[in-house]
Amino acid sequence: MENEKVSPIDRQDAYGKITGKAKYVDDLKFPGMLYVQTVRIPVPHARILHIDSSEALKLKGVVRVLTAKDVFGRNHLPNDKPVLAAEAVKCTGDGVALVVAETKSLALKAAKLVKVEYEELPAIFTPEEAFEPGAPILHGDSNCAITHKTVKGNIAEGFKEADVILEREYATQRAMHAAIEPDGAIVVPEADGISVYCPGKGPFNVKRAVAAACGLSENRVRLIQPAIGGAFGGKDCDINVIASRAAMAAMLTGRPCKMTWSREEVLLEGSKRHPFKLKYKIGAKKNGHITAIEINGLVDVGAYITKSKATIWRATVEATGPYNIENVSTTIVGAYTNNVYSDAVRGFGSPQVDFASESLMSELAKELGMDPLEIRRLNAYREGSITATSQELKSVNLIECLDKLEQVFPLHEKPAALQEGKVRGRGISCIFRGEANGAGVTTLDAAAVNIHIERDGSVTVLTGIAEMGQGGSNIVLQMVSKTLGVSIDHLKVSPLDTAYLPDSGATVGSRGTITSGNAAVVAAEDAKIRIAKVVAEAWSVASEELIFENNSIFTKNKEKQISFQDAITLCYTKLPGVFGYGWWSLPPVWWDFDKNCGDTYASFNYGACGAEVEIDLSSGKVEIIDLVAIHDVGRVLNEPEVKGQIAGGASMALGFTLTEEVVIQKGQVKTLNFDGYLLPTTLDFHNFRPMPLEPKQPGVNPLGVKGIGESSTATLAPAVINAIENALGVRIRKLPADLESVFAAIQESERLGSINDENQQIKDLRFSSLNSVNGSEEPERMLKGGETQ
Amino acid sequence: MENEKVSPIDRQDAYGKITGKAKYVDDLKFPGMLYVQTVRIPVPHARILHIDSSEALKLKGVVRVLTAKDVFGRNHLPNDKPVLAAEAVKCTGDGVALVVAETKSLALKAAKLVKVEYEELPAIFTPEEAFEPGAPILHGDSNCAITHKTVKGNIAEGFKEADVILEREYATQRAMHAAIEPDGAIVVPEADGISVYCPGKGPFNVKRAVAAACGLSENRVRLIQPAIGGAFGGKDCDINVIASRAAMAAMLTGRPCKMTWSREEVLLEGSKRHPFKLKYKIGAKKNGHITAIEINGLVDVGAYITKSKATIWRATVEATGPYNIENVSTTIVGAYTNNVYSDAVRGFGSPQVDFASESLMSELAKELGMDPLEIRRLNAYREGSITATSQELKSVNLIECLDKLEQVFPLHEKPAALQEGKVRGRGISCIFRGEANGAGVTTLDAAAVNIHIERDGSVTVLTGIAEMGQGGSNIVLQMVSKTLGVSIDHLKVSPLDTAYLPDSGATVGSRGTITSGNAAVVAAEDAKIRIAKVVAEAWSVASEELIFENNSIFTKNKEKQISFQDAITLCYTKLPGVFGYGWWSLPPVWWDFDKNCGDTYASFNYGACGAEVEIDLSSGKVEIIDLVAIHDVGRVLNEPEVKGQIAGGASMALGFTLTEEVVIQKGQVKTLNFDGYLLPTTLDFHNFRPMPLEPKQPGVNPLGVKGIGESSTATLAPAVINAIENALGVRIRKLPADLESVFAAIQESERLGSINDENQQIKDLRFSSLNSVNGSEEPERMLKGGETQ
Repeated sequence: MENEKVSPIDRQDAYGKITGKAKYVDDLKFPGMLYVQTVRIPVPHARILHIDSSEALKLKGVVRVLTAKDVFGRNHLPNDKPVLAAEAVKCTGDGVALVVAETKSLALKAAKLVKVEYEELPAIFTPEEAFEPGAPILHGDSNCAITHKTVKGNIAEGFKEADVILEREYATQRAMHAAIEPDGAIVVPEADGISVYCPGKGPFNVKRAVAAACGLSENRVRLIQPAIGGAFGGKDCDINVIASRAAMAAMLTGRPCKMTWSREEVLLEGSKRHPFKLKYKIGAKKNGHITAIEINGLVDVGAYITKSKATIWRATVEATGPYNIENVSTTIVGAYTNNVYSDAVRGFGSPQVDFASESLMSELAKELGMDPLEIRRLNAYREGSITATSQELKSVNLIECLDKLEQVFPLHEKPAALQEGKVRGRGISCIFRGEANGAGVTTLDAAAVNIHIERDGSVTVLTGIAEMGQGGSNIVLQMVSKTLGVSIDHLKVSPLDTAYLPDSGATVGSRGTITSGNAAVVAAEDAKIRIAKVVAEAWSVASEELIFENNSIFTKNKEKQISFQDAITLCYTKLPGVFGYGWWSLPPVWWDFDKNCGDTYASFNYGACGAEVEIDLSSGKVEIIDLVAIHDVGRVLNEPEVKGQIAGGASMALGFTLTEEVVIQKGQVKTLNFDGYLLPTTLDFHNFRPMPLEPKQPGVNPLGVKGIGESSTATLAPAVINAIENALGVRIRKLPADLESVFAAIQESERLGSINDENQQIKDLRFSSLNSVNGSEEPERMLKGGETQ
Repeated sequence: MENEKVSPIDRQDAYGKITGKAKYVDDLKFPGMLYVQTVRIPVPHARILHIDSSEALKLKGVVRVLTAKDVFGRNHLPNDKPVLAAEAVKCTGDGVALVVAETKSLALKAAKLVKVEYEELPAIFTPEEAFEPGAPILHGDSNCAITHKTVKGNIAEGFKEADVILEREYATQRAMHAAIEPDGAIVVPEADGISVYCPGKGPFNVKRAVAAACGLSENRVRLIQPAIGGAFGGKDCDINVIASRAAMAAMLTGRPCKMTWSREEVLLEGSKRHPFKLKYKIGAKKNGHITAIEINGLVDVGAYITKSKATIWRATVEATGPYNIENVSTTIVGAYTNNVYSDAVRGFGSPQVDFASESLMSELAKELGMDPLEIRRLNAYREGSITATSQELKSVNLIECLDKLEQVFPLHEKPAALQEGKVRGRGISCIFRGEANGAGVTTLDAAAVNIHIERDGSVTVLTGIAEMGQGGSNIVLQMVSKTLGVSIDHLKVSPLDTAYLPDSGATVGSRGTITSGNAAVVAAEDAKIRIAKVVAEAWSVASEELIFENNSIFTKNKEKQISFQDAITLCYTKLPGVFGYGWWSLPPVWWDFDKNCGDTYASFNYGACGAEVEIDLSSGKVEIIDLVAIHDVGRVLNEPEVKGQIAGGASMALGFTLTEEVVIQKGQVKTLNFDGYLLPTTLDFHNFRPMPLEPKQPGVNPLGVKGIGESSTATLAPAVINAIENALGVRIRKLPADLESVFAAIQESERLGSINDENQQIKDLRFSSLNSVNGSEEPERMLKGGETQ
């Protein structure tokens, strides 16, 4: 299987989505369905004193008003949040009560009539405030939600060896997935439990969360996934909240209950990307060899921990960037605040540290007067490199990515803007990223695929890996198709339904293709062995003689041949059924919490990015003129899909880099719709060149595939920011680099005369003053909002 | 497992059905759903000339009128019937067109406006007419739908050895299942195929039928079974018809389409039990030893063959009754007529031949002056007996059944009616019956059960065997519960859905418990091995040391113990998933169509019945005073359920015996509702004693279970008819023994002075005249409707 070419296939869910036949959760209706609306209060931290629902209940058609007292299971979701706040709200998004009504408009109207009496409490709005003496403690005995460390070598010795030491601070903002379809769920009471209809990346996790919230055993909660209107890693913790609320309403009324969030509610209560503040100190020899790096991060976890442990753990182990450094110390602390909770947004901690470390590498190159590509190549991970967590790396393809970048991206040519008042620059970045769950998760990283072959030779494919709209099901179909030699139109994946499918974990950490792709091969091989045995016996040949191809089975010498369908008919006279079962697990990994080291991920992928930007000097508007995204994705099973994933990741990264920010002031979300939260569109890329790289080094899994869902979001921000710096000679260290930030940089560059304008030759990238070794006095260090403490 | 006691459990579906939470197909609604009504013509045989739907289409809300031209797949269902008649109708039930409308009443109204121009053709109303010269040929080149034979020994030699030869003719009527819920289906168009919601015993068969009718591959038709409101072996071929019609409407309109039959439509078009006419000739020694039997049957197949082959094959191989006879010749012929089609109604051919053969045995006993129990015991199958098909029998428990009957039923005591004008009598019967599909079906007789164990230790159980309302799912739950030592409330069976579950065949031939019960044990053992390995490793003991009981796992010496839930938590850290997969097949059987012999079934069950009846001499009303139903059911897994099955079977048999008949005159169904088709109620049994017998002889399957769904319907009719004969001294040989038949028998008995009235001692069962050796001149031979030619 490993070396054979697999043909790409069309997206199997495209037809339904294009024709409108695909049903999203908001399209579903059930007889007698009620609508559930969350009641919230407009303060970020308050003690709830009394809830008066009498006025709301007077409205005809209002069926129930529910509060925390009505939660009959555990009022504590796995993400640490209550289904409904019992004693206190900890951020403005928190739900205090639910109105259940015959129509949605009635539910909205009644929600405003629920009177909540509360006592406002002192609140925390930044991680720094969280650790101030006298700060209110939000959970347990400290606002420190989590501290993760990695330690390698001796940091003090490392800095002693350095010729130059740079200290820099970077900051990233609160962002979000912004799927077209807002989150929602419908819960239907059944005779023996409940059925939950909702989109999401972790249906089995939602099932467990709802079961606990409702006091039901897990097998009495059935989760059925309708079509999903975008997720990108979202539709996770928020779906737990929504489904649990709809479930309690459904169980208490005995009727189907629907809760769908408006866009405002998604912004108000929905999870956001963790804002990071990162302090980097790096030491290097004059030749560019890095001797030590020290990283300290402070992260706004928000009001509840959600997936902050896993996110911050990943950020910690990846914070150095893909470089061979002898002496490392990384500490990242997550702090509770009274802001809306932070969660794993596509990239899961990587985009934040990659922005910082790759900005830093270009700063170091400039400081040392080196080519930014060369300094990266010099320090880059290679086969057998030891990471910051003391893991020995195998199948390392970073140098190939950098070589490819050099080949296709004209970093060393001078870019010139075509219009007056505009200026261009080029920048690059490179990354490594651990694949799948990694050692931060205690259960095995496994998935199952089962196949049932029907009597007419068509094949039903079952997998517990949720399709998130990215085409993950295609990979499973391709693997089954290829292994059984059956064309793709003979196959169909059954919709995700936890009442039937094997729990295969969530579609997170870019693990979908690796786990389900390999499981699909195991399942198809299992079926193939069964079929081959029957056919081989009928022909009196050895099973190994048989080839499955072109919807047929034949002997190597082609003397005997049977159509796949006829073979299945034969099998049904000899076998109890024709099926294949496949489970596949990633090799185990480990983490030593005492020594702060370990084998973090079974494998890593690598990437490199080159960006050319054009800046409008009058407005600060940044256009992406050219973007090359090179990713070591392992074996390419479906090139259009891989490129689509790279494009999607880059698009999200572009918003993260230039426009998107959920603004929260004193705990109040100010950007409550897409008029304030600005998304990029397809028009924002002028020339996008996704380049999946099939590496020479095979991967650790039999199929040789790697994940691409998230590394695609990690490279763009530093490449673009480095390009802006290349254009203006001024560095932006806080995201997003929005119009105001870029315009301030333009003004600074005019003051410094550092601009790379259209009539000017590109600056010599090797030029550097070296006059400011530790960089602490550089005026351009932080251009937005002052220092990032 | 074999010798351990299994505790019965409550019906797991009872709660939903009692509270109304269970949803039947008619309870389901889908947005935009349309209603489909069949258009029929009032003649049994006609050529269709023209269909004019213009008037119907003028009605606002009528969306489409469809005819055979709109069937885009194969217009020929597996039961030989077209989805819609293309050129000709062959019985009055046939569908000619479909009206698709926004409401049901509109569809009904519009159906009357569809004008069908046709030419009436000569029709056949009896099997005898089918073979008359010049009869119209309904299919192929002959109206002979099927001929089945069995031959053993030399029939002529056998009769030579006989001291007495009796010839008798028996007839059974057209009956039906009469489930409370009429048949129906809803078909929903999906992006990648269709979903069919319908009740039924063979969901995978319906899926295949609909796929063929719609020109879809099997994996693109998904069948979801809602709650089922009675089936008893029904909801089979008719569901194919209904689902295919709704499917074509759904595919052509792109909207969900519902077709539910009214009671009248069920009677008009729905399948019926085959009417049999059977001629028996039996020869015996004076001591009661049977030397030869010759059986000729003629069966009304109706307009289409449906499951007639399997039904008539079964009737043929079981026609002798459970007796060791050296010389046998059986021939049963099925003929096409223009009556509504006959299908496998609970019992699948057995009740018809058992009525005849067991009536005959009592007639022979009387003829020979023998005790009816003794003559049966004398000739009964025993271990190693060779059947009429030359199969050697194992695990034969018939003598145990007869011994039990003698012990519990006072056959030899004189029954006396307590009221004047009434008279009582007692009769018995015994049967054998092949289990499961038998050699008449070419695919393996297999089922699968898979289990997924959730992280909280609750268990999801998956089986492709359809629950028909009889509690079949309970058996699967009990087996998993017992094997894993987990209490029943931790388990849940997922609803039947062909998109996920392994094709396990239909719930027919009393195969459900045997196949799925054994598969459940295999699946649970598979999971148990996995779990035991993890626990044993953790404890450093051998897996074999572990006992699974009381929701715990412990070592034999009880030194170590862990809760099942904790063990599962442990497993999830070591295994990719915690699951068990189980397939199980019955041992293979065979049939030689040239020699008319074979091993028909892997095993048989046995039964005996005693009935005491009271007859109202003024009306002919027959009351069942006492009914003992003894059945060798193998191992009893759930005694209340087994008794419930026996009671249900007896209840259906009572209707078959005394009241139920679908009357068709000149092809027109005259009994179009329950006012004409008379069902028994629970008040019709005065003392019902179901007695499952756990035999000493183990069965052929590891679990030791046998089926009881159908043998329970086979013993009552002859026992009751023998009891009526005992009371009146007059024999009824045609079913049903309705008021008119019994009243005629009363009149005849008064004429003969043969009545066993309340003041009269019971007739000596050993008394016999022996004056009419071949019985051909007996005046009481046929009391209803003359000879049954």
